[in-house]
Amino acid sequence: MTAQTEPAKVTTGPIPGSRRVYAAPPERPDIAVPFREVLLHPSANEPPFRLYDTSGPYTDPALRIDLNEGAPWTRAAWLVRRGFASVPGRAVRPEDNGFASAEMLVPPCPAPHDVQMGREGAPVTQYEFARAGIVTEEMIYVAHRENLGRVQAAEGASERLADGESFGASIPSFVTPEFVRAEIAAGCAIIPANINHPELEPMIIGRNFLVKINANIGNSAVTSSAAEEVEKLVWAIRWGADTVMDLSTGRNIHNIRDWILRNSPVPIGTVPLYQALEKVGGDASKLDWEVFRDTLIEQAEQGVDYFTIHAGVRLAHIPLTADRVTGIVSRGGSIMAQWCLAHHRESFLYEHFSEICDIMRKYDVSFSLGDGLRPGSNADANDAAQFAELETLGELTRLAWDKGCQVMIEGPGHVPMHKIKANMDKQLATCGEAPFYTLGPLTTDIAPGYDHITSAIGAAMIGWFGTAMLCYVTPKEHLGLPNREDVKTGVITYKLAAHAADLAKGHPAARLRDDAISRARFEFRWEDQFNLGLDADTARDFHDQTLPKEAHKTAHFCSMCGPKFCSMKISQDIREKVRREEGMCEMSAAFNEGGGKIYVATP
Amino acid sequence: MTAQTEPAKVTTGPIPGSRRVYAAPPERPDIAVPFREVLLHPSANEPPFRLYDTSGPYTDPALRIDLNEGAPWTRAAWLVRRGFASVPGRAVRPEDNGFASAEMLVPPCPAPHDVQMGREGAPVTQYEFARAGIVTEEMIYVAHRENLGRVQAAEGASERLADGESFGASIPSFVTPEFVRAEIAAGCAIIPANINHPELEPMIIGRNFLVKINANIGNSAVTSSAAEEVEKLVWAIRWGADTVMDLSTGRNIHNIRDWILRNSPVPIGTVPLYQALEKVGGDASKLDWEVFRDTLIEQAEQGVDYFTIHAGVRLAHIPLTADRVTGIVSRGGSIMAQWCLAHHRESFLYEHFSEICDIMRKYDVSFSLGDGLRPGSNADANDAAQFAELETLGELTRLAWDKGCQVMIEGPGHVPMHKIKANMDKQLATCGEAPFYTLGPLTTDIAPGYDHITSAIGAAMIGWFGTAMLCYVTPKEHLGLPNREDVKTGVITYKLAAHAADLAKGHPAARLRDDAISRARFEFRWEDQFNLGLDADTARDFHDQTLPKEAHKTAHFCSMCGPKFCSMKISQDIREKVRREEGMCEMSAAFNEGGGKIYVATP
Repeated sequence: MTAQTEPAKVTTGPIPGSRRVYAAPPERPDIAVPFREVLLHPSANEPPFRLYDTSGPYTDPALRIDLNEGAPWTRAAWLVRRGFASVPGRAVRPEDNGFASAEMLVPPCPAPHDVQMGREGAPVTQYEFARAGIVTEEMIYVAHRENLGRVQAAEGASERLADGESFGASIPSFVTPEFVRAEIAAGCAIIPANINHPELEPMIIGRNFLVKINANIGNSAVTSSAAEEVEKLVWAIRWGADTVMDLSTGRNIHNIRDWILRNSPVPIGTVPLYQALEKVGGDASKLDWEVFRDTLIEQAEQGVDYFTIHAGVRLAHIPLTADRVTGIVSRGGSIMAQWCLAHHRESFLYEHFSEICDIMRKYDVSFSLGDGLRPGSNADANDAAQFAELETLGELTRLAWDKGCQVMIEGPGHVPMHKIKANMDKQLATCGEAPFYTLGPLTTDIAPGYDHITSAIGAAMIGWFGTAMLCYVTPKEHLGLPNREDVKTGVITYKLAAHAADLAKGHPAARLRDDAISRARFEFRWEDQFNLGLDADTARDFHDQTLPKEAHKTAHFCSMCGPKFCSMKISQDIREKVRREEGMCEMSAAFNEGGGKIYVATP
Repeated sequence: MTAQTEPAKVTTGPIPGSRRVYAAPPERPDIAVPFREVLLHPSANEPPFRLYDTSGPYTDPALRIDLNEGAPWTRAAWLVRRGFASVPGRAVRPEDNGFASAEMLVPPCPAPHDVQMGREGAPVTQYEFARAGIVTEEMIYVAHRENLGRVQAAEGASERLADGESFGASIPSFVTPEFVRAEIAAGCAIIPANINHPELEPMIIGRNFLVKINANIGNSAVTSSAAEEVEKLVWAIRWGADTVMDLSTGRNIHNIRDWILRNSPVPIGTVPLYQALEKVGGDASKLDWEVFRDTLIEQAEQGVDYFTIHAGVRLAHIPLTADRVTGIVSRGGSIMAQWCLAHHRESFLYEHFSEICDIMRKYDVSFSLGDGLRPGSNADANDAAQFAELETLGELTRLAWDKGCQVMIEGPGHVPMHKIKANMDKQLATCGEAPFYTLGPLTTDIAPGYDHITSAIGAAMIGWFGTAMLCYVTPKEHLGLPNREDVKTGVITYKLAAHAADLAKGHPAARLRDDAISRARFEFRWEDQFNLGLDADTARDFHDQTLPKEAHKTAHFCSMCGPKFCSMKISQDIREKVRREEGMCEMSAAFNEGGGKIYVATP
């Protein structure tokens, strides 16, 4: 037992070639926003390249990492000023940890945690603050973060770069805190930020911001170490996961979540239904509002930032799935369908939705309205069941907004390319532009073992069309539980899909990174190419397997035969051939004297 | 030396769970078209699932594989009837094999090879036959192949399945030989099929047919065994490569190509410029028409099915690349740019294009008009240089058609998602709908080590928009030489991208495979799911790593609570609540008596 409460090992240290830095918006020097800077070779003659950074304190060598103490409280001062009520909190019960016996019990995380709750009549959620016209520190933080710390937009550059097609999104060339507030107030974006998660480095999810990605983690059947579970989080955010969902089941679920939350700088999402099901011994028909409500409060007090709530699976929708090729494939959807059919009653989540809102508002837990009827095959995409549920989600979105809650909507699943746009458009129209959060979608069903790729195609496209956050898919999808390498592959694959979407949408700063890496590639700055990429380790390893190490060298297009020659505008006119060839000979001689290379070293 | 002429080892044997079968079109029982059939579990109650098969004789256990004898002559009888002239052929010269010394020389392949040449005034190429209204055996073969041996289209099914968006493509529900002929005559499709490649199992490339993929192979710096090189081919087609490009350089290039061609059931493409450059000692400025012409004839006589010809890189285009972020990245483009600049003359490929056509027509070598100025970064996509070259390619396409040649057009490269459609549309308009053959495109530059994925996104999209063949990209792109695993990963990735495109285009039979695998998934027929996928080995391995073996079982949606219940149309009317609940209770009791599961075993 003692071993488990000692500082445990997780992956720490800077990402190779990079350093974690902090920058504050000029108006708020007290708000330190983290970034990652890639250091370039001196021959590049470029400043360090700044990147969005999700890796938290773990990549900052100046910080001491101790899982028992938890991550730094980024939001402490902001939350204090809001005057929420400290409450004793719900006592942990044996069923919260699956009745784990004393010797099997993972101890709770000893990091300090003061449970807070919002008051009636005073704003609690980011949505409520936004509606009241109040710009929170979280809004200031994410604005600076989205801008990569640029104080002013490089207007000329952004105009040149932002040549994308945004399909109705309104991506500003510079993100102001006021813009963030307005987007949240309109329901078009959320900052998942439970008031009981002071360790959070806030981030924003909305189609007018950078496309984000989520990684799922979950405990193993038998968990011996909390550090092992925290490492899954640390590993996922090191590679770029913007949020992490803890889909753990079984024993120790409460205490492991505690370790994760106390050490997480990113929003943590959960599916409370999974834990509720554990509490009733795994029998869906035994679920009821009481056990669900208790689980919501338990997790909200711990600091979970968003809950997947499958309230859109209504009794009347279930028969719509009868003729499907793959029926109901969402775990939450199946649980609720089973409950509805066992009782032949309307879903208790749907019937108690208003009370769910009241609970979630008090802690600012954001809704992630689950798509329990998402298609599990291309054949079932965009069918009556899926769209019936989506209509219900739209209805629930408005209810949640009325209650002051932040909302995003989960989406499919398996969708062939030609049906992706329709899916996105339907979501925007039905759910009042609440952020869409999709799993993939997988664009074909025929590649088990490669579904990170079948889904990256769909993810990049739906991200382009307007999805705000992409839930990753690993190579093990449909086949088994992802291991460490699978998690990394899934995260990197989704980072590249999200970035491809940002580029296509015309995000004003997205192409800066592509251009920086392309310059490095053209100039044979190998280390810069590796370090500017999404996975320097793999790129370096691949390179070293076959290509010899080359010295750094710079090369530019032959300036002699470049732009000047261009103006000569060689014509096709044969009559001018001879005269032209005289000039040609001179150029030819000069080219050959210069070494005869089309790219020559710059002085 | 003796060791090298002995039968060498390549990967043979059936793909697990499958068998190679042959089927003939009813009107031509002499034409045996190969397919692969996946055998399903008896509980599926489905016939074997038929797939397109590129793997050649190597997966047929009934055939004896001997690389010294070469692959079976599928086309022998067809070619004989066309009465081409047998010619002595060009003698092999020391420079053809890079002046390899006796002890380093890979011996020529001893398989029989009779060099043939078309006659003036009589049709040679598939294009000429098509224009003359003649349906060749190759056309019959590919029609049956594209239909997966279906004699009649399942019209009801194809209507239901073909719900794609084809962007102007005209994909028939059933492919007839006459349709193939008409497509080739219109220049919209090609059958790369050198008359000196009798071993070929013909295939078609065109946007109204299944999207195809190409894998690149190339010899290592020091090659000790021809079998090693043939194995690269066999390995690539085992996983689904439709054509293979041999990009070898250095020593033994002629003899290795001979081994490849004599043992290849798929079209082989090359870039003759690479070998021509070897012949002049690697100095681009020393290239001339004579050495290039000689190389064309050398390779055409060997049986190469398509040549990449970089005739679109004109002197006047080169300055257009001066301001690019990544200049000229195509190897062929760089060679030609260097030649043009060294001499300050128009490209000799462009000036001699008509003679190139005359040579290629005589053997029916198809053109793959190279995009020497393709963008090497997102920044350079769809720029003046790329489009200027494309205009030239359109001009050359018409010239080649006038000369009776088959033509396809190579395309980029690096293109962000929002510029892909414009690229495709421009190609269709500029090149008279000649088939487009694209490398990727990569949709972002920031993921070295993962460019099979950045490019699969672009490949799937451009395939959907109309690209006929996708050139694969491996994880080693930009970094090093692909190994065996990389080749497999590249091929599988591109197979899934091509299939996603077929689905989205509304190919009438494409979804049959997705549905078959989805049924297997839903019914927990694990082996069927693996075997119907693109890579059964990896899927099985992933599954066995974490999930327990489950017995086969069939399960269907609860028929009791399914469609019948659906008709009850639960209303929201509260006044009817009590009456309705009576019926509900009955349903509930029946559901619970049945085991309380939403999916139950079928009798």
